Amino acid sequence: MIIVLKPKATEKDIQRLCTRIKELGLSPHVSRGKERTVIPVIGDERKLENVALMSYPFVEKVMAVLAPFKLVSRESRPRTTVVRARGLVVGEKKIALIAGPCSVEGEAMIVRIAKAVKKAGATALRGGAFKPRTSPYSFQGLGEEGLRHLAAARQATGLAVVTEVLDTRDVELVARYADVLQVGARNMQNFELLKEVGMSRRPVLFKRGISANLKEYLQAAEYILSRGNDQVMLCERGVRSVEDYARNTFDLNAVPILKELTHLPIVTDPSQATGKYSWVEPMSLASVACGADALIIEVHDRPEAAKSDGEQSILPARFARLVRAVRRVARAVGRTA
Amino acid sequence: MIIVLKPKATEKDIQRLCTRIKELGLSPHVSRGKERTVIPVIGDERKLENVALMSYPFVEKVMAVLAPFKLVSRESRPRTTVVRARGLVVGEKKIALIAGPCSVEGEAMIVRIAKAVKKAGATALRGGAFKPRTSPYSFQGLGEEGLRHLAAARQATGLAVVTEVLDTRDVELVARYADVLQVGARNMQNFELLKEVGMSRRPVLFKRGISANLKEYLQAAEYILSRGNDQVMLCERGVRSVEDYARNTFDLNAVPILKELTHLPIVTDPSQATGKYSWVEPMSLASVACGADALIIEVHDRPEAAKSDGEQSILPARFARLVRAVRRVARAVGRTA
Amino acid sequence: MIIVLKPKATEKDIQRLCTRIKELGLSPHVSRGKERTVIPVIGDERKLENVALMSYPFVEKVMAVLAPFKLVSRESRPRTTVVRARGLVVGEKKIALIAGPCSVEGEAMIVRIAKAVKKAGATALRGGAFKPRTSPYSFQGLGEEGLRHLAAARQATGLAVVTEVLDTRDVELVARYADVLQVGARNMQNFELLKEVGMSRRPVLFKRGISANLKEYLQAAEYILSRGNDQVMLCERGVRSVEDYARNTFDLNAVPILKELTHLPIVTDPSQATGKYSWVEPMSLASVACGADALIIEVHDRPEAAKSDGEQSILPARFARLVRAVRRVARAVGRTA
Amino acid sequence: MIIVLKPKATEKDIQRLCTRIKELGLSPHVSRGKERTVIPVIGDERKLENVALMSYPFVEKVMAVLAPFKLVSRESRPRTTVVRARGLVVGEKKIALIAGPCSVEGEAMIVRIAKAVKKAGATALRGGAFKPRTSPYSFQGLGEEGLRHLAAARQATGLAVVTEVLDTRDVELVARYADVLQVGARNMQNFELLKEVGMSRRPVLFKRGISANLKEYLQAAEYILSRGNDQVMLCERGVRSVEDYARNTFDLNAVPILKELTHLPIVTDPSQATGKYSWVEPMSLASVACGADALIIEVHDRPEAAKSDGEQSILPARFARLVRAVRRVARAVGRTA
Repeated sequence: MIIVLKPKATEKDIQRLCTRIKELGLSPHVSRGKERTVIPVIGDERKLENVALMSYPFVEKVMAVLAPFKLVSRESRPRTTVVRARGLVVGEKKIALIAGPCSVEGEAMIVRIAKAVKKAGATALRGGAFKPRTSPYSFQGLGEEGLRHLAAARQATGLAVVTEVLDTRDVELVARYADVLQVGARNMQNFELLKEVGMSRRPVLFKRGISANLKEYLQAAEYILSRGNDQVMLCERGVRSVEDYARNTFDLNAVPILKELTHLPIVTDPSQATGKYSWVEPMSLASVACGADALIIEVHDRPEAAKSDGEQSILPARFARLVRAVRRVARAVGRTA
Repeated sequence: MIIVLKPKATEKDIQRLCTRIKELGLSPHVSRGKERTVIPVIGDERKLENVALMSYPFVEKVMAVLAPFKLVSRESRPRTTVVRARGLVVGEKKIALIAGPCSVEGEAMIVRIAKAVKKAGATALRGGAFKPRTSPYSFQGLGEEGLRHLAAARQATGLAVVTEVLDTRDVELVARYADVLQVGARNMQNFELLKEVGMSRRPVLFKRGISANLKEYLQAAEYILSRGNDQVMLCERGVRSVEDYARNTFDLNAVPILKELTHLPIVTDPSQATGKYSWVEPMSLASVACGADALIIEVHDRPEAAKSDGEQSILPARFARLVRAVRRVARAVGRTA
Repeated sequence: MIIVLKPKATEKDIQRLCTRIKELGLSPHVSRGKERTVIPVIGDERKLENVALMSYPFVEKVMAVLAPFKLVSRESRPRTTVVRARGLVVGEKKIALIAGPCSVEGEAMIVRIAKAVKKAGATALRGGAFKPRTSPYSFQGLGEEGLRHLAAARQATGLAVVTEVLDTRDVELVARYADVLQVGARNMQNFELLKEVGMSRRPVLFKRGISANLKEYLQAAEYILSRGNDQVMLCERGVRSVEDYARNTFDLNAVPILKELTHLPIVTDPSQATGKYSWVEPMSLASVACGADALIIEVHDRPEAAKSDGEQSILPARFARLVRAVRRVARAVGRTA
Repeated sequence: MIIVLKPKATEKDIQRLCTRIKELGLSPHVSRGKERTVIPVIGDERKLENVALMSYPFVEKVMAVLAPFKLVSRESRPRTTVVRARGLVVGEKKIALIAGPCSVEGEAMIVRIAKAVKKAGATALRGGAFKPRTSPYSFQGLGEEGLRHLAAARQATGLAVVTEVLDTRDVELVARYADVLQVGARNMQNFELLKEVGMSRRPVLFKRGISANLKEYLQAAEYILSRGNDQVMLCERGVRSVEDYARNTFDLNAVPILKELTHLPIVTDPSQATGKYSWVEPMSLASVACGADALIIEVHDRPEAAKSDGEQSILPARFARLVRAVRRVARAVGRTA
């Protein structure tokens, strides 16, 4: 931590602050410049986190030296973590493909789509049984019945099942059916839910919040790891910005940045990040080109009748074409798919 | 709903779409312009909400005519709802003051601060027992013990108690101790929690999410009302923008806009919205000047030792001065405080 | 400047960096912590501004200690600057009112509105002759003819004339007619224009850019002062955020923050900041309550026929009512209007 | 245009509005629903643009049917425009590479770097002679002397020269030396400058503003085309968002979206969009994968001594490696480089 004092700070103020810092077992290194006095603090700066240094009227600003996350950091674990759930492997040379409808709408439907995406090259099936919808009047998912349909689709195809959990009370239930627990963007700072999935033994697909910066995102992921679960995939799915042709602004810079900051593998979600079927393929290719470890893609065989997100779902045939294009780009950057 | 077709839409496309619309019990009014065909749809447009009209390749855009919320709208209930919880009354001529520390840190502390804010003019006490913290290593609140301390402070002062609930599993517990359930910004779209507090009989202080627009905010409030609880106060607490001197960007435009859109009363939170003690008073006065029905203010008697948010907490004496200034501005705009 | 090194930085890297710093006439104070080496640099940190410290692969981050502006800072001049142009005085106890139409549409029109706003209490007249319009097909203003009409309105009322200049080539021309040169939001970082108005002897009304943070805004104002013109009023007119009911997000936090950071007086523009006539009055009152030194308000006597911004213009009678309300709030906060 | 009336609108209000619409030569098609009356207006909706329909108190909202730009739209010209300047060709199958330093710092320097980037595969040289710097105290460029150095570098290599123009007064001067006029992000809505480059016969590299949405960006480009110059390249260079590890948020969704909306070719600027040398290559590859027609890359042979943007400049050898990787990805998506 580095503390910058206001010009008006007196010698007495400086002493008062240094005493406080030493009480916490830290060493202040007072550095007096012409315009400002600056105090780098040596020792574990996390001890200062709960101290409201800015409430001293003679403190101008406080700057952190270390990142505010630890277990998720590349510094703490240099090798990329590989997440494994049944046939799904994320974090190795081969780029993984997770595909399926936004919502599970029935057993026949999910089995049919599961077969189609498997044939095209997917190793995991996505599909929501519990849906967080902006409006209370929108379709909220089939609940446990939807989970049973997902299990049937897994039975039929061998694909790993990825599905969202919304409520701390449902974590056990969802974990009984799913291979991967998804935590959605709206719940990125639902810390009670993060603690709960952190205590589960299921891998987690953890989506970035719609206006979260990467620091907050990694701090939230830290909640999961700090409870003992390090099988976490991060997922960039678009953030909110000034632009509105697309549903979100796809922050692909996050891919190389996260690779530098954390050992967790990175998934991108071009369906959510664009919101429109015709933009999914180019943005899938861009994701692969800049280093994503997996893609999660919405596929539906009757988009215009989908109960949610039809406008961003692609047909199975288009998904198959997308997979072929992904393979070409993967090879161009030294990977496979 | 108004559907705008692409120039390339054929007569057959138009017929196909109209058939679909009629199947839903709605009437399409096709209006053929020189450059575009436009189809206003007459009838309950909410029936079209789950139809992915944008997945038709000949549809260019879809525009909603009605607001996507109903129970919260001023149109559905012209008079402002008055929320009452013990001595706290929000939505009448008198501006209410809710004050107290960010977190409950002990019984003596909360009782002492409760007495101070009551003396200055507050009618409700705020204080967190369950705290949603960005980092898992920050103080997470005293939990049920904190709730008991709040009850002791109420006992000592008669103030209504406002405290946050984070987890669906805790709603009952918190409702047992609190007069008002607070749902925080990070949980604005934790819909399972909203449903749960919607089924509680406690009034709710419902904070706007950090990057939520007002439409999403009101749709989220609709979740609470749709479960039967209309004792809801909205609370503007700052949104995220490009500016970073302040912790948040205080969106005070939201006050007159919400008054136009909804019958729910409006609280503002100048402590969160600024993040710095010296800006709390001017922004409290601005809130009152543009029509807020209540203020929620962080007060602590030893900010530099506070376990959270010390830098934005004001001293009791400063709060008392703030209340006097609020009263002068309230009178200037035809209200009291 | 404080330089934080990566954990992998070697002793040789540290020496290389220190040598570079000393060459610039500055002193590095190396402070070796357990996890990071931190180097506060003593001396004029502006010397380091053009050095790309981040291009050294062993540097993790670089943090500025001082604000990147000087002449505009409150630190360099503790008393608020008072801007004077004819009867317009901004920065004293009395809150100034600048009012008039968005665009000058004709002589009779501008004279008529000038008389109306003067009668209601304005001391300056606004009105655009050169208009920066988002679309090339929108009305672009009357140009020099509009300036002549403004001069006629001044002649008729004695009001100071505030009007926008868009082009370096027009600064002299506009300065011949205007009492105050306005630089609009879209030109906040048109540095050539800022230099030019900085060399003019006319006071400047300098609007904040639509997504500028306050640091960038003050750096841009520094361009004007650095050329010798310190008669500059800052103007908060709303920034872009996630919210879209209003045309902009009115960042009123900027008022107390700017008062802390700079000696320049602060104007707010509730017309632009809301975009809708019915929200102008509450947001004018909020501006006054939190400390604005002046308001600039769009007034038109036939809004539905206005050539620009009709939807946010208020009628003269409504402006007169607004002035009365402003006076009441001004008194409540110890000022006049 | 579609006009939605408030529930309280009377029959007389509707008649008044329809009369106004007919006076403008347009036809109103009144469509009365249960909850709202909706009026699609048939005819050239641009006639309604300057009418402040929202100033009628009985109008609830106004929705545009057509995009607010015409000459730049794909609808008006289905084939992609190819921009040509000396050896630089943008908009064909081959992806073009524009490279060079942020600023021209001297003749030897620019000639040396020009040779290096040419050897690696670039067909155009970038380099600023007039620099728009956030602070007035930063290096402002060499001015005309810099232009002469650029001409010398062109002489030595045959590369097309791309350089920025900041001031309407300099357009002629810069056009005398440059092959392509660059208009920077800060000047995206400096409409006087756009008109001036629109009257020049030089191709234009037109950068997106830092918080401009695509609609505003295309409306601004419309200014250039409406003056007769259609040799315009658009350039995505990152927008501002909530994220701050990177200098900007690279909005790559803009690539496929712009390809749908406009016939102008698309350049991306991974150097500006990331702000850090190590992220330039992955984001260059992502740009190519999603369809960019050209890249503009900052290259410097002594980044730590660069007078601007050193931290995002890459060394010539790294640029050569980047070009090889770009070629592999280009082939994977059916293009060359």
